[in-house]
Amino acid sequence: MTQPVVCTSVAEMREVLETRVAQGVTSVGLFPTMGALHDGHLRIAQTAREENQLVVVSVFVNPLQFGPNEDFDSYPRQLEQDVAGLSASGVDIVFAPSTEEMYPGGVPVVSVTSGQAGSVLEGATRPGHFDGALTVVNKLFTIIQPGPGVEFRAYFGEKDAQQLLLMQRMVRDFNHRVQIRPVPIVRSEQGLALSSRNQYLTTDDAAHALVLNHTLRSLAAGELTLDQARGRIDAEPSVKLDYLVTVDPDTLAEIQPRAGALALAAAWVGPTRLIDNMKI
Amino acid sequence: MTQPVVCTSVAEMREVLETRVAQGVTSVGLFPTMGALHDGHLRIAQTAREENQLVVVSVFVNPLQFGPNEDFDSYPRQLEQDVAGLSASGVDIVFAPSTEEMYPGGVPVVSVTSGQAGSVLEGATRPGHFDGALTVVNKLFTIIQPGPGVEFRAYFGEKDAQQLLLMQRMVRDFNHRVQIRPVPIVRSEQGLALSSRNQYLTTDDAAHALVLNHTLRSLAAGELTLDQARGRIDAEPSVKLDYLVTVDPDTLAEIQPRAGALALAAAWVGPTRLIDNMKI
Repeated sequence: MTQPVVCTSVAEMREVLETRVAQGVTSVGLFPTMGALHDGHLRIAQTAREENQLVVVSVFVNPLQFGPNEDFDSYPRQLEQDVAGLSASGVDIVFAPSTEEMYPGGVPVVSVTSGQAGSVLEGATRPGHFDGALTVVNKLFTIIQPGPGVEFRAYFGEKDAQQLLLMQRMVRDFNHRVQIRPVPIVRSEQGLALSSRNQYLTTDDAAHALVLNHTLRSLAAGELTLDQARGRIDAEPSVKLDYLVTVDPDTLAEIQPRAGALALAAAWVGPTRLIDNMKI
Repeated sequence: MTQPVVCTSVAEMREVLETRVAQGVTSVGLFPTMGALHDGHLRIAQTAREENQLVVVSVFVNPLQFGPNEDFDSYPRQLEQDVAGLSASGVDIVFAPSTEEMYPGGVPVVSVTSGQAGSVLEGATRPGHFDGALTVVNKLFTIIQPGPGVEFRAYFGEKDAQQLLLMQRMVRDFNHRVQIRPVPIVRSEQGLALSSRNQYLTTDDAAHALVLNHTLRSLAAGELTLDQARGRIDAEPSVKLDYLVTVDPDTLAEIQPRAGALALAAAWVGPTRLIDNMKI
């Protein structure tokens, strides 16, 4: 088990990548993260490890994807611990740039927008969130692009379903030479979808939060209507439903529950906002 | 003089490019155009020819950068004639994709935006124009990117000053591996800045349009104040001034005329909108 190379500048990242490609690497996997890595992240890193000769994990808390009232300042930052976990997963390179390195001079003048598709569901309660996420991942794709002749894959969890769809659209709309690899949701033994924000939950709230998974399972099994499922989530102590909808997984348009649809849920559990989803 | 290779699909474009890079090409020049090429374009193509081993000229009338009341439908399309001109300029590859090839399924979901900087000056009278231009050029940069180890340069005329600045910002903000090469304005013998739209001008209007160049020269020479210059343009028969301002060439912020500033003018000449600019 060797330590990953930690690159903090774009130039250094490109230099290390080019050296490895010149040495004969023919596949590169990128897993973009905001750090605070948990087992869910590490399993994605391991998937990337299995599928690629060279694995890059980016660790960057991207200010553009946080709203003014969100937790940018308090978002956990623990690079040393993250690098240790990634080392155990066999990751080759950790790209951990500063905010100034990614956005020299401040907010970019030219950026990425997802328009209407980024303003519904999660986008409705988090204005600008997807545009911020797309803007930074677009940069990562351009920075880490290994060039013609090298397979380039990027890994995104299915937990952030809307993000995954928009990333796939960006690749198509921008002609990025990268293949998006969706990775299934990782859950705790009890069923809670793993998230960096779970660490904000009290023991009681973590137990209440399980209603999301349980309800999605009942909905997927056809045991509840959408309205019943909504009622069940809202009836849970400490839990306030934001939305529960079923959508076409290709377009995110709302449809009635049916086989192949994707059920998406978001709820506040105490002061913490959680999301989950499940295929029907 | 050999005929350029004409590529109409992204896959074909990339294949031809990769073959040439594999054969040892170490510099690629891209000149994005909407076709209807005139001598001004051909001189830019020749500049790219002098500076690069491989020259790609894209010919694509980009619907996204035309407003609903602009001349998308009537914009001149003359690929055969354009290819002949580019052949004489020694261009290697003409990339001439269809609208469906560039925007499969219609308007992209994810696109590029220039926000405030794209909504002033030309952007004020052409809402969405710069976002459309950036969106297509972003795709061209990604499609034609030759990869690490190959110099990649893109050529833009200084005539479209705001476009040039925004392209430079996009390269910086998106980490594109391309060097923007600004090319000075080419003018007719009388001084009219060359434009595809000049062919819409009657002989009389072409004569009236010279007031733009003459006035910018007088302004640059300090012979007129900004207000006097505006008055002179508006006094010309058939000419209606849209704006005449002096700006900081790095930020496009309006400043008073001074050495180093850039004077930007836009005017309707008969039914045709023309722009011009000059360094002071």
